[in-house]
Amino acid sequence: MSVYPIMLSQTKFIHRDNLHYPFEERAMQFGDGVYEVIRIYKGNYYLMKEHIDRFFRSAEAVKIRLPFTKEELTNLLNNLIQKNVVTADAKLYLQVSRGSASRDHIFPVGIDANVYGYIQEQARNVTNLQDGVKAITERDIRWEYCYIKSLNLLPNVLAKQTASEQGAYEAILHKDGMVTECSSSNVYLIKDGTIYTYPATKRILHGCVRMRVEQFAKDLNIPFNEEGFTVEDIALADEMFLSSSTSEVLPIITVDDSKIGNGYPGPITRKLQRAYEEDANISDKKIEQTN
Amino acid sequence: MSVYPIMLSQTKFIHRDNLHYPFEERAMQFGDGVYEVIRIYKGNYYLMKEHIDRFFRSAEAVKIRLPFTKEELTNLLNNLIQKNVVTADAKLYLQVSRGSASRDHIFPVGIDANVYGYIQEQARNVTNLQDGVKAITERDIRWEYCYIKSLNLLPNVLAKQTASEQGAYEAILHKDGMVTECSSSNVYLIKDGTIYTYPATKRILHGCVRMRVEQFAKDLNIPFNEEGFTVEDIALADEMFLSSSTSEVLPIITVDDSKIGNGYPGPITRKLQRAYEEDANISDKKIEQTN
Repeated sequence: MSVYPIMLSQTKFIHRDNLHYPFEERAMQFGDGVYEVIRIYKGNYYLMKEHIDRFFRSAEAVKIRLPFTKEELTNLLNNLIQKNVVTADAKLYLQVSRGSASRDHIFPVGIDANVYGYIQEQARNVTNLQDGVKAITERDIRWEYCYIKSLNLLPNVLAKQTASEQGAYEAILHKDGMVTECSSSNVYLIKDGTIYTYPATKRILHGCVRMRVEQFAKDLNIPFNEEGFTVEDIALADEMFLSSSTSEVLPIITVDDSKIGNGYPGPITRKLQRAYEEDANISDKKIEQTN
Repeated sequence: MSVYPIMLSQTKFIHRDNLHYPFEERAMQFGDGVYEVIRIYKGNYYLMKEHIDRFFRSAEAVKIRLPFTKEELTNLLNNLIQKNVVTADAKLYLQVSRGSASRDHIFPVGIDANVYGYIQEQARNVTNLQDGVKAITERDIRWEYCYIKSLNLLPNVLAKQTASEQGAYEAILHKDGMVTECSSSNVYLIKDGTIYTYPATKRILHGCVRMRVEQFAKDLNIPFNEEGFTVEDIALADEMFLSSSTSEVLPIITVDDSKIGNGYPGPITRKLQRAYEEDANISDKKIEQTN
């Protein structure tokens, strides 16, 4: 996946080849920062306001002061698309760290946060969306503040790598018997016409697509139950799916090599995928409604 | 604290001004790496073998392949001291990340790990060692694999900042009622002549100085109990102290503004500090044995 040449650095635009960080950067040494990934369809951000709101919430939660207002950031990100002449499907990566300073856990005084953002090509994976993906289950060993979209992603990296090594797309994480979310997406179980998912507490990321899925369910009169589900419940599921900005609404067809339902994407998942495509104004290469 | 000019970069030596990392570096975007801090007294590493062993254990735990053997790293670090003509008290910071690659949780294939190390001046804080420090208690919200010395340090940063804002040196972390460790040090409670501390499970960092403290206790016939202690036990403590490579054996004299014992460093802590100074061959500015 290639990166577009013009990047956001602090509140300026520079060429990607000119952006380098020193060794004493707090993202480098502490993971002391937060980030966002925003989906771009045909050169337009999807759920931009929701992502910018969450970016500010995450920064506030770790007490990093951003050098712009939400409106200013919106303008900067829109300019970034224009300067790169993005017309394809892509994604924005946006990160802020507390800044560069002599290494000390305690917040350094008098330095500016380091902001950078870049746009990368990202085609929709229509094959996955059509056919569904495999998942495995893994213990959720992460910290207690997963609602903060922080740069401390080592447990997520390890879980997703384990999934990959087992030929799966994602790792479904569970803590104290309850399924929380996946390594980089939210996860849902459908049983008897109801969608079940973990509540939006501090234990999971409050996905922007998750918020939309809740709305789609409401619009479609599908009950959306936030009491969560257990690892054992998976064996009884009619359908399962995950959601994220890069994965969209993605059917899960096997978990730990056991089929979910009949092993094919189910009808409620398909309805949600159609609702997603309408919401995101996706006009071509749409998912076929086979169910 | 100033950084010495010559740094280790991969297996080479370069000037610190020339070391810059690209934005797609896995330490920057995932905290996907591990590190060590090694104390240097008068130009000599203290507990070097123990730190190098742990560095390799941490890297193995997160499946990062190091580009050198332990012996080769030992030689590189010794050369780093010589090239910088370090004769003062200082510390080495050494980090490895999985490398630089297009952002994806899954391990990238065919890239090299990024290694860097540098030496920074660090005088002993004899005032703190003599007088003791204040601590606060905080909930341990970290992930479950704290035995890995990883770059995912955001919860540690937040806890130490909270301590600092309350005029304290460290935050004593507790989980399920048990005291685990501090934000960047191990912690101990002394009651009726016995030292209590959390067992060396996956929940805490297995401190190199902690290992020495255990040996000092053995040499001094002081019972060393690894069943741990609770937050409530703190009110009953005769003495408390913490240990780390930069803090050494450091008395804690108040916790959450309540005095520990009589509010002064206690006699067993002093014995351990003396044992530390002997072990590390510290010859001047030694702690006065006031008790």
